[in-house]
Amino acid sequence: APGEVWLVGAGPGDPGLLTQRAASALARADLVLHDALPGRAMLRLVRAGATVLAVGKRKGHAPLSQAKINARLIAGARAGHRVVRLKGGDPFLFGRGGEEAVALTAAGIPWRVVPGVTAGTAAPAAAGIPLTHRGTASAVTFVTGHDEAGELPGSVDWDALGRAGGTIAAFMALSRLDEIALRLLAAGRAPKTPVAVVAQASLPGQAVLRTTLGTCTLEARRAALPTPALVVIGEVAGLGLLQAVAAPVPAVVASRTA
Amino acid sequence: APGEVWLVGAGPGDPGLLTQRAASALARADLVLHDALPGRAMLRLVRAGATVLAVGKRKGHAPLSQAKINARLIAGARAGHRVVRLKGGDPFLFGRGGEEAVALTAAGIPWRVVPGVTAGTAAPAAAGIPLTHRGTASAVTFVTGHDEAGELPGSVDWDALGRAGGTIAAFMALSRLDEIALRLLAAGRAPKTPVAVVAQASLPGQAVLRTTLGTCTLEARRAALPTPALVVIGEVAGLGLLQAVAAPVPAVVASRTA
Repeated sequence: APGEVWLVGAGPGDPGLLTQRAASALARADLVLHDALPGRAMLRLVRAGATVLAVGKRKGHAPLSQAKINARLIAGARAGHRVVRLKGGDPFLFGRGGEEAVALTAAGIPWRVVPGVTAGTAAPAAAGIPLTHRGTASAVTFVTGHDEAGELPGSVDWDALGRAGGTIAAFMALSRLDEIALRLLAAGRAPKTPVAVVAQASLPGQAVLRTTLGTCTLEARRAALPTPALVVIGEVAGLGLLQAVAAPVPAVVASRTA
Repeated sequence: APGEVWLVGAGPGDPGLLTQRAASALARADLVLHDALPGRAMLRLVRAGATVLAVGKRKGHAPLSQAKINARLIAGARAGHRVVRLKGGDPFLFGRGGEEAVALTAAGIPWRVVPGVTAGTAAPAAAGIPLTHRGTASAVTFVTGHDEAGELPGSVDWDALGRAGGTIAAFMALSRLDEIALRLLAAGRAPKTPVAVVAQASLPGQAVLRTTLGTCTLEARRAALPTPALVVIGEVAGLGLLQAVAAPVPAVVASRTA
């Protein structure tokens, strides 16, 4: 039988945020290629005898190039395997799943995508921050803080984004926070605009820094937060809804240093 | 023991897109208040003896007001129950979960949120559309097509949004598609900008209309798509990555009428 490739979203890292379909896809896979997932417990779902390959960045190992990942996916499917490409968050939202889908389609390999819980909603939720809120924000923009070259993506019009007025949730933005803050301030966003940095959302190392657009760069540097981190910019970041409950969730650590 | 409230994302409707934590929350709940979910199969996870209340819009029934929902959640928790508020998609992204969290916090009720797969990523994925794609889009804005009064939300700056250049994914936008298209055209988006309308994503009635910004209003009217629908606007909507695979997914019906 011909093989196929499933591009599967793993969610933000907490195995509890894996979908039922992702779990069953892992259990029936012959070959799993996974990113450097922050939470690897979900790989225990893979059946004995299946091949599991880490293809993301790991300590002491260069990540596999996108071209090599694509070639592995295609070769696996051509060998008749059920291949799962497990990706952090959602495959089609800053997951480069589109590039893999293009390569698979060009090679004539059947594929499908299993959407996942994006860190774009999970990280703010872990800090008690709604992305949209009646009377506060009716839109949210997800943007990435760096492109393949590590630069702020040139195609994003930060000035228009700043003036559009909704919530901004920036992925992988810690290293470029100074530039992002400066551009949004230049676009007219107030220095006192609330900002929350949510690091390692849903994981044991979760930490939240509550700050403002004017001071976030300095405070984030002082707090030395772990990655990955999502930066939420806008009035919703100041709502402060969070209330601790007696439940098996990682604690929210207030890392505010100022 | 004091009760607590879990605000739980149900995902777009397909029970396979429920998270593991949402499933276990449903299984251990004493009281479940749920929206008019498009896919109700997931309610089978609720244990015998638990109370299940539909609070959303249903045929012949007015939805419970937000104030009454809040009161029910609070009363349930005060009675010592484990209360699950099951909401379509993600509770904190156009789910009004923030309003419930505010009410619960004010009442001193412990609560937590379980993020879900938003239709914002699941609907495009079902149509093979990545929201971000290398060289095509580095940002995506989620926006709602109507506020509580059924109008386009006044706080959204469609002109700035149109000029920001990224992907736009509009929730509940079918009834206001004419206004949205006009505003984005006025902001300088080209009439040939690809648009995809994904109706009932992940459900048996799923249908996808591929059109353009210039003609989407007319074509959507002709196609008479079912709701809920997500409208994806931007170059990514024209990528056409989808390839059918032999797998238990609802078929994508090409509803294009032009």
